[in-house]
Amino acid sequence: MSDSAIHPVTVRRIRLPDDVTTLTDVTASEEPLEIRVEGRSVAVVMRTPGHDEELVAGFLVSEGIIKNARDILEISQCPSTGNVHGNVVDVLLGAVVVNWDHLTRHVFSASSCGICGKTSIESVFMSFPPVTSELWVNAELLTTLPAKLRAAQETFSQTGGLHASAIFDEQGEMLVLREDVGRHNALDKVLGHGLKAGLLPYSRHILLVSGRVSFELMQKALAAGVPIVAAISAPSSLAVQFAESSGQTLVGFLRGQTMNVYTHPERVSCALATSVHKEELIGVEQSQTVIG
Amino acid sequence: MSDSAIHPVTVRRIRLPDDVTTLTDVTASEEPLEIRVEGRSVAVVMRTPGHDEELVAGFLVSEGIIKNARDILEISQCPSTGNVHGNVVDVLLGAVVVNWDHLTRHVFSASSCGICGKTSIESVFMSFPPVTSELWVNAELLTTLPAKLRAAQETFSQTGGLHASAIFDEQGEMLVLREDVGRHNALDKVLGHGLKAGLLPYSRHILLVSGRVSFELMQKALAAGVPIVAAISAPSSLAVQFAESSGQTLVGFLRGQTMNVYTHPERVSCALATSVHKEELIGVEQSQTVIG
Repeated sequence: MSDSAIHPVTVRRIRLPDDVTTLTDVTASEEPLEIRVEGRSVAVVMRTPGHDEELVAGFLVSEGIIKNARDILEISQCPSTGNVHGNVVDVLLGAVVVNWDHLTRHVFSASSCGICGKTSIESVFMSFPPVTSELWVNAELLTTLPAKLRAAQETFSQTGGLHASAIFDEQGEMLVLREDVGRHNALDKVLGHGLKAGLLPYSRHILLVSGRVSFELMQKALAAGVPIVAAISAPSSLAVQFAESSGQTLVGFLRGQTMNVYTHPERVSCALATSVHKEELIGVEQSQTVIG
Repeated sequence: MSDSAIHPVTVRRIRLPDDVTTLTDVTASEEPLEIRVEGRSVAVVMRTPGHDEELVAGFLVSEGIIKNARDILEISQCPSTGNVHGNVVDVLLGAVVVNWDHLTRHVFSASSCGICGKTSIESVFMSFPPVTSELWVNAELLTTLPAKLRAAQETFSQTGGLHASAIFDEQGEMLVLREDVGRHNALDKVLGHGLKAGLLPYSRHILLVSGRVSFELMQKALAAGVPIVAAISAPSSLAVQFAESSGQTLVGFLRGQTMNVYTHPERVSCALATSVHKEELIGVEQSQTVIG
Protein backbone atom coordinates (compact mmCIF):
# COMPACT_ATOMS: atom_id res chain seq x y z
CA MET A 1 0.00 0.00 0.00
CA SER A 2 1.43 3.35 -0.95
CA ASP A 3 2.03 6.04 1.65
CA SER A 4 -0.61 8.18 0.01
CA ALA A 5 -3.28 5.68 1.08
CA ILE A 6 -2.93 6.70 4.70
CA HIS A 7 -2.90 10.12 6.22
CA PRO A 8 -1.56 11.06 9.68
CA VAL A 9 -3.81 12.99 12.05
CA THR A 10 -3.48 14.27 15.60
CA VAL A 11 -6.20 12.82 17.77
CA ARG A 12 -7.31 13.18 21.38
CA ARG A 13 -7.95 9.67 22.69
CA ILE A 14 -10.30 9.52 25.67
CA ARG A 15 -10.50 6.42 27.86
CA LEU A 16 -12.95 7.01 30.66
CA PRO A 17 -12.82 7.62 33.49
CA ASP A 18 -9.61 9.64 33.37
CA ASP A 19 -7.20 8.78 30.54
CA VAL A 20 -6.84 11.56 27.98
CA THR A 21 -3.94 11.36 25.53
CA THR A 22 -2.97 13.35 22.49
CA LEU A 23 -1.37 11.13 19.88
CA THR A 24 -0.77 10.67 16.18
CA ASP A 25 -3.04 8.23 14.40
CA VAL A 26 -3.63 7.50 10.74
CA THR A 27 -6.76 7.71 8.64
CA ALA A 28 -7.52 6.21 5.26
CA SER A 29 -6.90 8.79 2.57
CA GLU A 30 -9.94 9.96 0.63
CA GLU A 31 -9.51 12.26 -2.36
CA PRO A 32 -11.50 13.00 -5.49
CA LEU A 33 -10.39 11.53 -8.82
CA GLU A 34 -11.73 12.96 -12.03
CA ILE A 35 -11.91 10.38 -14.82
CA ARG A 36 -11.70 11.74 -18.34
CA VAL A 37 -12.09 9.75 -21.54
CA GLU A 38 -10.45 11.38 -24.54
CA GLY A 39 -10.54 14.70 -22.75
CA ARG A 40 -14.20 14.52 -21.70
CA SER A 41 -15.02 14.34 -18.00
CA VAL A 42 -17.10 11.21 -17.37
CA ALA A 43 -16.97 10.77 -13.59
CA VAL A 44 -15.62 12.04 -10.31
CA VAL A 45 -15.15 9.38 -7.66
CA MET A 46 -14.05 9.80 -4.04
CA ARG A 47 -11.26 7.27 -3.74
CA THR A 48 -8.15 6.30 -1.80
CA PRO A 49 -5.13 7.31 -3.90
CA GLY A 50 -3.10 4.41 -5.26
CA HIS A 51 -3.61 2.08 -8.23
CA ASP A 52 -5.47 4.87 -9.96
CA GLU A 53 -4.86 3.45 -13.43
CA GLU A 54 -6.39 0.15 -12.33
CA LEU A 55 -9.35 2.03 -10.86
CA VAL A 56 -9.98 3.82 -14.13
CA ALA A 57 -9.55 0.67 -16.23
CA GLY A 58 -11.87 -1.28 -13.92
CA PHE A 59 -14.43 1.51 -14.00
CA LEU A 60 -14.49 1.30 -17.80
CA VAL A 61 -14.82 -2.50 -17.66
CA SER A 62 -17.77 -2.35 -15.29
CA GLU A 63 -19.37 0.38 -17.41
CA GLY A 64 -19.17 -2.03 -20.34
CA ILE A 65 -16.96 0.31 -22.37
CA ILE A 66 -13.91 -1.93 -22.70
CA LYS A 67 -13.21 -5.65 -22.54
CA ASN A 68 -9.51 -6.03 -23.33
CA ALA A 69 -6.30 -4.32 -22.35
CA ARG A 70 -5.78 -3.32 -25.97
CA ASP A 71 -8.96 -1.21 -25.83
CA ILE A 72 -6.90 1.29 -23.85
CA LEU A 73 -4.17 3.03 -25.79
CA GLU A 74 -2.93 5.21 -22.96
CA ILE A 75 -3.82 6.30 -19.43
CA SER A 76 -2.20 9.57 -18.42
CA GLN A 77 -2.30 11.09 -14.95
CA CYS A 78 -1.59 14.66 -13.99
CA PRO A 79 1.64 14.65 -11.97
CA SER A 80 1.48 15.14 -8.21
CA THR A 81 2.47 18.58 -7.00
CA GLY A 82 3.30 19.18 -3.36
CA ASN A 83 0.70 17.49 -1.22
CA VAL A 84 -1.75 17.17 -4.09
CA HIS A 85 -1.84 13.81 -5.85
CA GLY A 86 -2.53 13.53 -9.54
CA ASN A 87 -6.28 13.72 -9.21
CA VAL A 88 -7.15 13.86 -12.91
CA VAL A 89 -6.73 10.86 -15.20
CA ASP A 90 -7.30 10.88 -18.96
CA VAL A 91 -7.87 7.71 -20.99
CA LEU A 92 -7.18 7.39 -24.70
CA LEU A 93 -9.25 4.54 -26.12
CA GLY A 94 -8.63 2.29 -29.11
CA ALA A 95 -11.33 1.23 -31.56
CA VAL A 96 -14.14 1.36 -29.02
CA VAL A 97 -17.67 2.69 -29.46
CA VAL A 98 -18.57 4.92 -26.51
CA ASN A 99 -22.16 5.69 -25.47
CA TRP A 100 -21.39 9.13 -24.08
CA ASP A 101 -24.88 9.76 -22.67
CA HIS A 102 -24.65 6.58 -20.65
CA LEU A 103 -21.05 7.06 -19.58
CA THR A 104 -21.40 10.64 -18.36
CA ARG A 105 -24.36 9.97 -16.08
CA HIS A 106 -22.05 10.01 -13.03
CA VAL A 107 -20.49 13.39 -13.79
CA PHE A 108 -20.38 15.93 -11.00
CA SER A 109 -20.71 19.50 -12.13
CA ALA A 110 -17.39 21.30 -12.29
CA SER A 111 -18.59 23.80 -9.70
CA SER A 112 -19.30 21.10 -7.15
CA CYS A 113 -16.11 19.09 -7.32
CA GLY A 114 -13.63 21.79 -8.08
CA ILE A 115 -10.69 19.48 -8.46
CA CYS A 116 -8.99 21.78 -10.91
CA GLY A 117 -8.53 24.88 -8.81
CA LYS A 118 -10.50 25.15 -5.64
CA THR A 119 -10.56 22.15 -3.37
CA SER A 120 -13.68 20.11 -2.78
CA ILE A 121 -13.82 21.41 0.76
CA GLU A 122 -13.70 25.08 -0.16
CA SER A 123 -16.45 24.70 -2.71
CA VAL A 124 -18.74 23.16 -0.10
CA PHE A 125 -18.21 26.12 2.23
CA MET A 126 -19.56 28.39 -0.44
CA SER A 127 -22.93 26.73 0.20
CA PHE A 128 -22.80 26.06 3.92
CA PRO A 129 -21.10 28.25 6.54
CA PRO A 130 -19.03 26.59 9.30
CA VAL A 131 -20.90 25.77 12.51
CA THR A 132 -20.57 28.13 15.45
CA SER A 133 -22.63 26.20 17.99
CA GLU A 134 -21.38 26.50 21.57
CA LEU A 135 -22.77 23.08 22.45
CA TRP A 136 -20.55 20.88 24.57
CA VAL A 137 -21.26 17.49 26.14
CA ASN A 138 -19.61 15.16 28.61
CA ALA A 139 -17.63 12.26 27.17
CA GLU A 140 -19.70 10.01 29.46
CA LEU A 141 -22.83 11.02 27.62
CA LEU A 142 -21.29 10.07 24.28
CA THR A 143 -20.39 6.61 25.53
CA THR A 144 -24.05 5.89 26.25
CA LEU A 145 -25.20 6.57 22.69
CA PRO A 146 -24.06 3.46 20.77
CA ALA A 147 -26.13 1.17 23.01
CA LYS A 148 -29.19 3.34 22.38
CA LEU A 149 -28.55 3.18 18.67
CA ARG A 150 -28.26 -0.59 18.67
CA ALA A 151 -31.35 -1.03 20.80
CA ALA A 152 -33.35 1.05 18.35
CA GLN A 153 -32.11 -0.73 15.25
CA GLU A 154 -35.05 -3.01 14.72
CA THR A 155 -33.90 -4.21 11.33
CA PHE A 156 -30.17 -4.50 11.81
CA SER A 157 -30.36 -7.52 14.05
CA GLN A 158 -32.34 -9.36 11.41
CA THR A 159 -30.31 -8.61 8.32
CA GLY A 160 -26.90 -7.31 9.39
CA GLY A 161 -27.04 -5.24 6.25
CA LEU A 162 -28.21 -1.76 7.17
CA HIS A 163 -26.42 1.45 8.04
CA ALA A 164 -27.97 3.63 10.74
CA SER A 165 -27.97 7.35 11.48
CA ALA A 166 -29.47 8.86 14.61
CA ILE A 167 -29.87 12.32 16.10
CA PHE A 168 -29.62 12.83 19.87
CA ASP A 169 -30.30 15.96 21.89
CA GLU A 170 -27.76 17.32 24.37
CA GLN A 171 -29.25 15.20 27.15
CA GLY A 172 -28.51 12.09 25.09
CA GLU A 173 -32.11 11.36 24.15
CA MET A 174 -32.58 9.86 20.70
CA LEU A 175 -34.91 11.98 18.58
CA VAL A 176 -34.83 9.99 15.36
CA LEU A 177 -33.13 6.91 13.93
CA ARG A 178 -33.18 5.85 10.29
CA GLU A 179 -31.65 2.87 8.51
CA ASP A 180 -30.72 2.21 4.91
CA VAL A 181 -28.45 0.09 2.70
CA GLY A 182 -26.76 3.39 1.85
CA ARG A 183 -25.17 5.32 4.70
CA HIS A 184 -25.81 8.64 2.94
CA ASN A 185 -29.48 7.70 2.53
CA ALA A 186 -29.84 6.95 6.25
CA LEU A 187 -28.44 10.41 7.00
CA ASP A 188 -30.62 12.11 4.37
CA LYS A 189 -33.67 10.53 6.02
CA VAL A 190 -32.58 11.91 9.39
CA LEU A 191 -32.17 15.36 7.86
CA GLY A 192 -35.53 15.14 6.13
CA HIS A 193 -37.14 14.19 9.44
CA GLY A 194 -35.59 17.26 11.03
CA LEU A 195 -36.86 19.47 8.26
CA LYS A 196 -40.40 18.16 8.47
CA ALA A 197 -40.43 18.25 12.29
CA GLY A 198 -39.11 21.81 12.42
CA LEU A 199 -35.89 20.73 14.17
CA LEU A 200 -33.38 22.21 11.69
CA PRO A 201 -30.73 23.37 12.12
CA TYR A 202 -29.61 20.55 14.41
CA SER A 203 -27.39 23.08 16.20
CA ARG A 204 -27.76 21.61 19.73
CA HIS A 205 -27.61 17.99 18.60
CA ILE A 206 -25.32 15.02 18.15
CA LEU A 207 -25.29 12.82 15.05
CA LEU A 208 -24.27 9.19 15.56
CA VAL A 209 -23.60 6.92 12.57
CA SER A 210 -23.19 3.15 12.74
CA GLY A 211 -20.17 2.81 10.49
CA ARG A 212 -17.47 4.94 8.93
CA VAL A 213 -17.51 8.65 8.19
CA SER A 214 -16.70 9.96 4.72
CA PHE A 215 -16.37 13.47 3.36
CA GLU A 216 -19.91 13.18 1.99
CA LEU A 217 -21.42 12.43 5.40
CA MET A 218 -19.69 15.41 7.01
CA GLN A 219 -20.94 17.62 4.20
CA LYS A 220 -24.53 16.48 4.77
CA ALA A 221 -24.18 16.97 8.53
CA LEU A 222 -22.91 20.50 7.95
CA ALA A 223 -25.87 21.25 5.69
CA ALA A 224 -28.05 20.54 8.72
CA GLY A 225 -25.78 22.48 11.11
CA VAL A 226 -24.76 19.47 13.25
CA PRO A 227 -21.92 20.50 15.63
CA ILE A 228 -20.94 17.01 16.89
CA VAL A 229 -20.63 13.96 14.62
CA ALA A 230 -19.79 10.64 16.26
CA ALA A 231 -19.14 7.29 14.59
CA ILE A 232 -18.70 3.73 15.74
CA SER A 233 -15.93 3.27 13.19
CA ALA A 234 -13.23 5.29 11.43
CA PRO A 235 -13.34 8.63 9.62
CA SER A 236 -11.59 9.17 6.30
CA SER A 237 -8.79 11.69 5.95
CA LEU A 238 -11.01 14.09 4.06
CA ALA A 239 -13.75 13.82 6.69
CA VAL A 240 -11.21 14.94 9.30
CA GLN A 241 -9.93 17.81 7.15
CA PHE A 242 -13.48 18.86 6.43
CA ALA A 243 -14.48 18.83 10.11
CA GLU A 244 -11.44 20.87 11.03
CA SER A 245 -12.49 23.60 8.59
CA SER A 246 -16.21 23.37 9.20
CA GLY A 247 -15.91 23.82 12.95
CA GLN A 248 -17.47 20.41 13.59
CA THR A 249 -16.39 18.07 16.35
CA LEU A 250 -15.64 14.67 14.84
CA VAL A 251 -15.52 11.63 17.16
CA GLY A 252 -14.53 8.19 15.81
CA PHE A 253 -14.20 4.67 17.21
CA LEU A 254 -16.83 5.40 19.88
CA ARG A 255 -16.75 2.00 21.57
CA GLY A 256 -17.25 1.09 25.20
CA GLN A 257 -15.52 3.70 27.36
CA THR A 258 -13.19 4.98 24.63
CA MET A 259 -13.32 7.34 21.71
CA ASN A 260 -11.02 9.32 19.41
CA VAL A 261 -11.75 13.02 19.08
CA TYR A 262 -10.30 14.13 15.75
CA THR A 263 -11.35 17.78 15.61
CA HIS A 264 -12.61 20.56 17.87
CA PRO A 265 -12.27 18.62 21.14
CA GLU A 266 -13.51 21.62 23.14
CA ARG A 267 -17.04 20.27 22.71
CA VAL A 268 -16.20 17.01 24.52
CA SER A 269 -15.66 17.49 28.23
CA CYS A 270 -13.95 14.93 30.44
CA ALA A 271 -15.36 15.93 33.82
CA LEU A 272 -13.76 12.99 35.58
CA ALA A 273 -10.27 13.55 34.23
CA THR A 274 -8.06 14.78 37.05
CA SER A 275 -6.53 18.21 36.92
CA VAL A 276 -3.10 16.61 36.62
CA HIS A 277 -4.12 14.91 33.43
CA LYS A 278 -5.60 18.09 32.09
CA GLU A 279 -2.39 19.99 32.74
CA GLU A 280 -0.33 17.30 31.07
CA LEU A 281 -2.59 17.44 28.08
CA ILE A 282 -2.40 21.20 27.83
CA GLY A 283 1.35 20.97 28.11
CA VAL A 284 1.45 18.50 25.27
CA GLU A 285 -0.67 20.69 23.08
CA GLN A 286 1.22 23.88 23.79
CA SER A 287 4.54 22.34 22.98
CA GLN A 288 3.16 20.79 19.80
CA THR A 289 4.63 17.49 20.88
CA VAL A 290 2.95 14.51 19.38
CA ILE A 291 3.04 11.26 21.30
CA GLY A 292 2.98 8.20 19.09
CA MET B 1 -39.20 -0.27 10.31
CA SER B 2 -41.68 -1.05 7.57
CA ASP B 3 -41.98 -4.54 6.12
CA SER B 4 -40.66 -3.27 2.82
CA ALA B 5 -37.27 -2.64 4.44
CA ILE B 6 -36.58 -6.34 4.71
CA HIS B 7 -36.90 -9.03 2.11
CA PRO B 8 -37.12 -12.77 2.75
CA VAL B 9 -34.72 -15.10 0.94
CA THR B 10 -34.09 -18.82 0.94
CA VAL B 11 -30.52 -19.56 1.94
CA ARG B 12 -28.35 -22.64 2.29
CA ARG B 13 -26.48 -22.31 5.56
CA ILE B 14 -23.29 -24.34 5.76
CA ARG B 15 -21.60 -25.05 9.09
CA LEU B 16 -18.56 -27.20 8.53
CA PRO B 17 -17.82 -29.98 8.85
CA ASP B 18 -21.25 -31.42 8.13
CA ASP B 19 -24.22 -29.14 8.91
CA VAL B 20 -26.10 -28.01 5.80
CA THR B 21 -29.53 -26.46 6.27
CA THR B 22 -31.93 -24.74 3.94
CA LEU B 23 -33.78 -21.95 5.70
CA THR B 24 -35.50 -18.63 5.26
CA ASP B 25 -33.47 -15.55 6.12
CA VAL B 26 -34.04 -11.86 5.51
CA THR B 27 -31.98 -9.32 3.62
CA ALA B 28 -32.11 -5.54 3.72
CA SER B 29 -34.22 -4.29 0.84
CA GLU B 30 -32.41 -2.28 -1.81
CA GLU B 31 -34.39 -0.59 -4.58
CA PRO B 32 -33.86 2.39 -6.84
CA LEU B 33 -35.67 5.65 -6.10
CA GLU B 34 -35.94 8.31 -8.78
CA ILE B 35 -36.11 11.82 -7.34
CA ARG B 36 -37.85 14.39 -9.51
CA VAL B 37 -38.12 18.10 -8.79
CA GLU B 38 -41.05 19.75 -10.53
CA GLY B 39 -41.14 16.91 -13.01
CA ARG B 40 -37.42 16.91 -13.81
CA SER B 41 -35.37 13.86 -12.88
CA VAL B 42 -32.50 14.99 -10.64
CA ALA B 43 -31.19 11.77 -9.10
CA VAL B 44 -31.59 8.04 -8.82
CA VAL B 45 -30.44 6.58 -5.52
CA MET B 46 -30.28 2.94 -4.45
CA ARG B 47 -32.09 2.96 -1.13
CA THR B 48 -33.98 0.86 1.37
CA PRO B 49 -37.71 1.62 0.90
CA GLY B 50 -39.32 3.46 3.79
CA HIS B 51 -39.32 7.11 4.86
CA ASP B 52 -38.92 8.05 1.21
CA GLU B 53 -40.33 11.54 1.69
CA GLU B 54 -37.75 12.17 4.41
CA LEU B 55 -35.02 10.86 2.14
CA VAL B 56 -36.02 13.25 -0.62
CA ALA B 57 -36.37 16.21 1.73
CA GLY B 58 -32.99 15.46 3.33
CA PHE B 59 -31.38 15.08 -0.08
CA LEU B 60 -32.60 18.56 -1.02
CA VAL B 61 -31.34 19.96 2.32
CA SER B 62 -27.88 18.50 1.85
CA GLU B 63 -27.83 19.73 -1.76
CA GLY B 64 -28.45 23.22 -0.39
CA ILE B 65 -31.72 23.61 -2.31
CA ILE B 66 -34.05 24.03 0.67
CA LYS B 67 -33.73 25.13 4.28
CA ASN B 68 -37.25 25.10 5.69
CA ALA B 69 -40.25 22.81 5.56
CA ARG B 70 -42.20 25.55 3.80
CA ASP B 71 -39.77 25.36 0.85
CA ILE B 72 -41.57 22.14 -0.10
CA LEU B 73 -45.14 22.58 -1.25
CA GLU B 74 -45.80 18.89 -1.95
CA ILE B 75 -44.04 15.55 -2.22
CA SER B 76 -45.96 13.01 -4.28
CA GLN B 77 -45.01 9.35 -4.66
CA CYS B 78 -46.22 6.98 -7.33
CA PRO B 79 -48.41 4.39 -5.64
CA SER B 80 -47.07 0.88 -5.12
CA THR B 81 -48.36 -1.72 -7.53
CA GLY B 82 -48.02 -5.41 -6.77
CA ASN B 83 -44.51 -6.07 -5.53
CA VAL B 84 -43.20 -2.77 -6.84
CA HIS B 85 -42.95 0.07 -4.35
CA GLY B 86 -43.54 3.66 -5.38
CA ASN B 87 -40.07 4.19 -6.76
CA VAL B 88 -40.60 7.65 -8.24
CA VAL B 89 -41.06 10.73 -6.08
CA ASP B 90 -41.85 14.22 -7.39
CA VAL B 91 -41.27 17.37 -5.34
CA LEU B 92 -43.10 20.65 -5.87
CA LEU B 93 -41.03 23.51 -4.45
CA GLY B 94 -42.08 26.89 -3.10
CA ALA B 95 -40.22 30.12 -3.80
CA VAL B 96 -36.81 28.47 -4.18
CA VAL B 97 -34.09 29.19 -6.72
CA VAL B 98 -32.78 25.93 -8.17
CA ASN B 99 -29.36 25.55 -9.80
CA TRP B 100 -30.41 22.80 -12.20
CA ASP B 101 -26.92 22.14 -13.57
CA HIS B 102 -25.66 21.49 -10.08
CA LEU B 103 -28.67 19.50 -8.96
CA THR B 104 -28.82 17.13 -11.91
CA ARG B 105 -25.20 16.02 -11.67
CA HIS B 106 -26.25 12.73 -10.05
CA VAL B 107 -28.74 11.72 -12.73
CA PHE B 108 -28.49 8.24 -14.13
CA SER B 109 -29.41 7.96 -17.78
CA ALA B 110 -32.91 6.65 -18.31
CA SER B 111 -31.53 3.64 -20.16
CA SER B 112 -29.43 2.55 -17.21
CA CYS B 113 -31.92 2.81 -14.40
CA GLY B 114 -35.07 1.79 -16.18
CA ILE B 115 -37.33 2.34 -13.22
CA CYS B 116 -40.27 3.17 -15.41
CA GLY B 117 -40.70 -0.03 -17.36
CA LYS B 118 -37.80 -2.45 -17.39
CA THR B 119 -36.22 -3.29 -14.08
CA SER B 120 -32.71 -2.26 -13.18
CA ILE B 121 -31.61 -5.87 -13.34
CA GLU B 122 -32.94 -6.50 -16.83
CA SER B 123 -31.23 -3.41 -18.19
CA VAL B 124 -27.88 -4.61 -16.86
CA PHE B 125 -28.26 -7.95 -18.60
CA MET B 126 -28.51 -6.13 -21.90
CA SER B 127 -24.84 -5.21 -21.41
CA PHE B 128 -23.48 -8.31 -19.67
CA PRO B 129 -24.64 -11.88 -20.25
CA PRO B 130 -25.16 -14.22 -17.26
CA VAL B 131 -22.14 -16.30 -16.25
CA THR B 132 -22.00 -19.91 -17.38
CA SER B 133 -18.78 -20.93 -15.64
CA GLU B 134 -18.74 -24.54 -14.43
CA LEU B 135 -16.35 -23.68 -11.61
CA TRP B 136 -17.09 -25.24 -8.23
CA VAL B 137 -15.10 -25.19 -5.02
CA ASN B 138 -15.17 -26.88 -1.66
CA ALA B 139 -16.78 -24.98 1.20
CA GLU B 140 -13.57 -25.65 3.16
CA LEU B 141 -11.61 -23.65 0.63
CA LEU B 142 -13.94 -20.68 1.04
CA THR B 143 -13.51 -20.68 4.81
CA THR B 144 -9.75 -20.17 4.38
CA LEU B 145 -10.12 -16.98 2.33
CA PRO B 146 -11.06 -14.35 4.96
CA ALA B 147 -7.86 -14.97 6.94
CA LYS B 148 -5.81 -14.52 3.76
CA LEU B 149 -7.65 -11.29 3.04
CA ARG B 150 -7.01 -9.91 6.51
CA ALA B 151 -3.36 -10.91 6.44
CA ALA B 152 -2.90 -9.04 3.18
CA GLN B 153 -4.67 -5.90 4.30
CA GLU B 154 -1.63 -3.88 5.15
CA THR B 155 -3.55 -0.68 5.65
CA PHE B 156 -6.70 -1.86 7.34
CA SER B 157 -5.03 -2.67 10.61
CA GLN B 158 -3.72 0.88 10.81
CA THR B 159 -6.82 2.86 9.95
CA GLY B 160 -9.84 0.59 10.28
CA GLY B 161 -11.31 2.63 7.47
CA LEU B 162 -10.75 0.74 4.23
CA HIS B 163 -12.85 -1.69 2.24
CA ALA B 164 -11.04 -4.55 0.54
CA SER B 165 -11.67 -6.63 -2.58
CA ALA B 166 -9.59 -9.64 -3.52
CA ILE B 167 -9.55 -12.19 -6.33
CA PHE B 168 -8.60 -15.80 -5.59
CA ASP B 169 -8.03 -18.64 -8.03
CA GLU B 170 -9.78 -21.98 -7.64
CA GLN B 171 -6.95 -23.31 -5.46
CA GLY B 172 -7.59 -20.45 -3.02
CA GLU B 173 -4.49 -18.48 -3.91
CA MET B 174 -4.89 -14.72 -3.73
CA LEU B 175 -4.02 -13.08 -7.05
CA VAL B 176 -4.73 -9.46 -6.18
CA LEU B 177 -6.03 -7.41 -3.26
CA ARG B 178 -7.00 -3.75 -3.38
CA GLU B 179 -8.29 -1.38 -0.70
CA ASP B 180 -10.22 1.86 -0.84
CA VAL B 181 -12.52 4.09 1.20
CA GLY B 182 -15.15 3.18 -1.41
CA ARG B 183 -16.06 -0.47 -1.75
CA HIS B 184 -16.90 -0.04 -5.44
CA ASN B 185 -13.48 1.57 -6.01
CA ALA B 186 -11.69 -1.37 -4.39
CA LEU B 187 -13.53 -3.69 -6.77
CA ASP B 188 -12.87 -1.48 -9.80
CA LYS B 189 -9.15 -1.61 -8.97
CA VAL B 190 -9.31 -5.41 -8.84
CA LEU B 191 -11.04 -5.47 -12.24
CA GLY B 192 -8.53 -3.03 -13.68
CA HIS B 193 -5.70 -5.24 -12.45
CA GLY B 194 -7.31 -8.20 -14.18
CA LEU B 195 -7.64 -6.28 -17.41
CA LYS B 196 -4.04 -5.12 -17.39
CA ALA B 197 -2.71 -8.54 -16.37
CA GLY B 198 -4.71 -10.35 -19.06
CA LEU B 199 -6.76 -12.27 -16.47
CA LEU B 200 -10.24 -11.22 -17.65
CA PRO B 201 -12.79 -12.68 -17.62
CA TYR B 202 -12.34 -13.91 -14.05
CA SER B 203 -14.35 -17.01 -15.03
CA ARG B 204 -12.42 -19.50 -12.82
CA HIS B 205 -12.08 -17.13 -9.87
CA ILE B 206 -13.62 -16.14 -6.55
CA LEU B 207 -14.18 -12.54 -5.48
CA LEU B 208 -14.06 -11.85 -1.74
CA VAL B 209 -15.16 -8.47 -0.35
CA SER B 210 -14.57 -7.30 3.19
CA GLY B 211 -18.01 -5.87 3.89
CA ARG B 212 -21.50 -5.94 2.49
CA VAL B 213 -22.63 -6.70 -1.06
CA SER B 214 -24.87 -4.30 -2.97
CA PHE B 215 -26.48 -4.51 -6.38
CA GLU B 216 -23.68 -2.34 -7.74
CA LEU B 217 -20.94 -4.73 -6.60
CA MET B 218 -22.68 -7.71 -8.19
CA GLN B 219 -23.05 -5.76 -11.41
CA LYS B 220 -19.32 -4.97 -11.48
CA ALA B 221 -18.45 -8.59 -10.70
CA LEU B 222 -20.65 -9.73 -13.57
CA ALA B 223 -18.92 -7.29 -15.93
CA ALA B 224 -15.72 -9.21 -15.17
CA GLY B 225 -17.42 -12.62 -15.41
CA VAL B 226 -16.87 -13.63 -11.76
CA PRO B 227 -18.88 -16.82 -10.99
CA ILE B 228 -18.50 -16.84 -7.17
CA VAL B 229 -18.82 -13.72 -5.01
CA ALA B 230 -18.22 -14.11 -1.28
CA ALA B 231 -18.58 -11.50 1.44
CA ILE B 232 -17.75 -11.25 5.11
CA SER B 233 -21.03 -9.47 5.75
CA ALA B 234 -24.57 -9.32 4.37
CA PRO B 235 -25.89 -8.97 0.83
CA SER B 236 -28.77 -6.63 -0.02
CA SER B 237 -32.04 -7.97 -1.39
CA LEU B 238 -31.24 -6.66 -4.86
CA ALA B 239 -27.78 -8.24 -4.79
CA VAL B 240 -29.45 -11.61 -4.16
CA GLN B 241 -32.04 -11.10 -6.90
CA PHE B 242 -29.31 -10.01 -9.27
CA ALA B 243 -27.13 -13.04 -8.52
CA GLU B 244 -30.06 -15.38 -9.03
CA SER B 245 -30.62 -13.99 -12.52
CA SER B 246 -26.96 -13.55 -13.44
CA GLY B 247 -26.04 -17.15 -12.65
CA GLN B 248 -23.59 -16.03 -9.97
CA THR B 249 -23.06 -17.85 -6.70
CA LEU B 250 -23.44 -15.38 -3.83
CA VAL B 251 -22.02 -16.31 -0.42
CA GLY B 252 -22.55 -14.03 2.59
CA PHE B 253 -21.52 -14.00 6.26
CA LEU B 254 -18.39 -16.02 5.47
CA ARG B 255 -17.07 -16.26 9.02
CA GLY B 256 -15.14 -19.03 10.72
CA GLN B 257 -16.58 -22.37 9.62
CA THR B 258 -19.95 -21.00 8.51
CA MET B 259 -21.42 -19.25 5.49
CA ASN B 260 -24.76 -18.51 3.86
CA VAL B 261 -25.10 -19.47 0.20
CA TYR B 262 -27.84 -17.27 -1.25
CA THR B 263 -27.81 -18.29 -4.90
CA HIS B 264 -26.54 -21.08 -7.17
CA PRO B 265 -25.26 -23.31 -4.36
CA GLU B 266 -24.15 -25.96 -6.89
CA ARG B 267 -20.79 -24.20 -7.03
CA VAL B 268 -20.12 -24.78 -3.30
CA SER B 269 -19.44 -28.41 -2.47
CA CYS B 270 -19.59 -29.81 1.05
CA ALA B 271 -17.34 -32.82 0.64
CA LEU B 272 -17.40 -33.66 4.33
CA ALA B 273 -21.16 -33.58 4.67
CA THR B 274 -22.41 -37.14 5.12
CA SER B 275 -24.60 -38.71 2.53
CA VAL B 276 -27.45 -38.75 5.03
CA HIS B 277 -27.25 -35.00 5.33
CA LYS B 278 -27.11 -34.61 1.60
CA GLU B 279 -30.24 -36.70 1.17
CA GLU B 280 -32.07 -34.70 3.79
CA LEU B 281 -31.08 -31.54 2.02
CA ILE B 282 -32.24 -32.78 -1.34
CA GLY B 283 -35.50 -33.83 0.25
CA VAL B 284 -36.00 -30.38 1.65
CA GLU B 285 -35.34 -28.77 -1.67
CA GLN B 286 -37.52 -31.12 -3.68
CA SER B 287 -40.49 -30.61 -1.40
CA GLN B 288 -39.97 -26.86 -1.46
CA THR B 289 -40.23 -26.89 2.31
CA VAL B 290 -38.65 -23.92 3.97
CA ILE B 291 -37.35 -24.31 7.48
CA GLY B 292 -37.50 -21.12 9.52
